[in-house]
Amino acid sequence: MAELGGTPAFLFDLDGTLIDSVYQHVMAWQEALSSCGISLSVWRIHRRIGMSGGLFLSALQRETGRALDAGTLAALAKRHQDGYLRRVGSVSPLPGANDLLALLAARGAQFAIATSSSGKVASAGLALLDLPTGVPVVTRDQVQRAKPDPDLFLAAAELLGVSPGRCFVVGDSVWDLLAAQRAGALGIGLLSGGYGEQELDAAGAYRVYDDAADLLAHLEETGVRPQA
Amino acid sequence: MAELGGTPAFLFDLDGTLIDSVYQHVMAWQEALSSCGISLSVWRIHRRIGMSGGLFLSALQRETGRALDAGTLAALAKRHQDGYLRRVGSVSPLPGANDLLALLAARGAQFAIATSSSGKVASAGLALLDLPTGVPVVTRDQVQRAKPDPDLFLAAAELLGVSPGRCFVVGDSVWDLLAAQRAGALGIGLLSGGYGEQELDAAGAYRVYDDAADLLAHLEETGVRPQA
Repeated sequence: MAELGGTPAFLFDLDGTLIDSVYQHVMAWQEALSSCGISLSVWRIHRRIGMSGGLFLSALQRETGRALDAGTLAALAKRHQDGYLRRVGSVSPLPGANDLLALLAARGAQFAIATSSSGKVASAGLALLDLPTGVPVVTRDQVQRAKPDPDLFLAAAELLGVSPGRCFVVGDSVWDLLAAQRAGALGIGLLSGGYGEQELDAAGAYRVYDDAADLLAHLEETGVRPQA
Repeated sequence: MAELGGTPAFLFDLDGTLIDSVYQHVMAWQEALSSCGISLSVWRIHRRIGMSGGLFLSALQRETGRALDAGTLAALAKRHQDGYLRRVGSVSPLPGANDLLALLAARGAQFAIATSSSGKVASAGLALLDLPTGVPVVTRDQVQRAKPDPDLFLAAAELLGVSPGRCFVVGDSVWDLLAAQRAGALGIGLLSGGYGEQELDAAGAYRVYDDAADLLAHLEETGVRPQA
C-alpha cells in the first residue's frame, strides 16, 4: 500500500476541463448529424460529449430508431472532426488551467492528459495550453476503448509510472467520473463543461469545483503540499 | 378558490423549452463579449440564458470586476441580438413542442408564451412553431422586469384571464422556475435547455421532464383531461 501515499498524481480530461471547447464539439456534432438528415436535440448531444464516439453513435441509433451503415458512421465522425477543427479558433483555455498545471509542476505533482478525442482533434486543443514538455497525453487512437471505460486513464497512469489509486481524475463529464471509478482513482468534477453539480456528485465525484481556477484555489483539498 | 379548479393553463418559456435555441444564444453572447474584449467561460453564459439581459450584464460586471459604460452595454446587447439572428437558421422546434401545443388546444387548455427575449428575437423563434392564432405572447419589451421576476408570467396569465395559481409555468431554466414560484404558479422543468435535473428540482420544479415530447407523454400528470 506504500505506493498509495505521497504526492498524488493528476489525470486530466481535456475538453471542458482544460479548454472551453464543449460547445464547439456540440455544434459540430449537430451540424454533422443534420447533414446526414438526423435531427437530435442539442442538449442530448451535450450530455454525451466526452464519451467514446462509438458509444455516442450507438446510442444515437437506438434513440433515433435508425440503423446507420458503416459509411454513414464514418462520414459522421469525419464531419464532426472537420466541423470542430473549423471552430477551434474560438476555443480558449479555461480559467486557471495553465496556472494549475504550472503549480502542479512546481510542487512536483505528476500529471497527464487523457481524452476520448482522436490525436488530431486533441492536438488542436493541446496547442492552446502551456504544457511542460514530457507530459504524457493519451488519445482515443492509443487505447481499445474510450470513456466511460477506464482504458485512457489506466494508460495515462501507467505512462506516469504511478498506481491509479494514487491518482485524481479531473473531468467535467459523468463519463470521466465513471471511468475514474472503474480505474480505481478518485474523481474530481468541474462544472466548466456545463453539467450540473449533482450530476457529477451522483457519478462519484470526490469533490466538485467550478473550474480549474477554483480547483487551484482549493488545491490543498487534494493533499498537494508546498515542496519542502 | 373556485377559479383554481378546472383545466389548468400553461405559460411556456420559449428558448430551450419550445425551440432548440439555447446554444445559439450562448455562442452569440460569447461572440458579443469577445468582440468587447471580455472573456467569459461558455458554461457561465449558458447558466444565465433566460434571465433578464440587464441582470446578466450586471452579474457579468461583478464577475469580471469591470464596469461597463452604457454604450458598451448597448453594443453587447445589440451584438448578441445580431449574432443570434444570424444563427437562427440552425434553430429547430424541440421534439414534441408543436404536438404538445396542438393537444392542449384540442383539449381546451389555454396557453401563452412568455420570454425574456425582445420582440424581434422572439418573433424569429415563434416563426418556427405552428402557433394557433390568438395565443398570447409576452416579450421583454412588454413588462418592467424579466425573469426571475414574475412579471412576464403574471402578464401572460392576465392575458389568458386566469389566475396564476391555476397555471403551470413550463421552462428549461432555474429563472423560469424561480419566476413561477414568485408568480404563485407551479413550475414544470424541461431538461431540453441543458440544465441538470437536480438544478431544476432545487429551483422548485413540480415535475421535471426530458422535453416537450416527454411532457406530452405524461400530460395527465398535470391534470389535463380528454374533453367530455
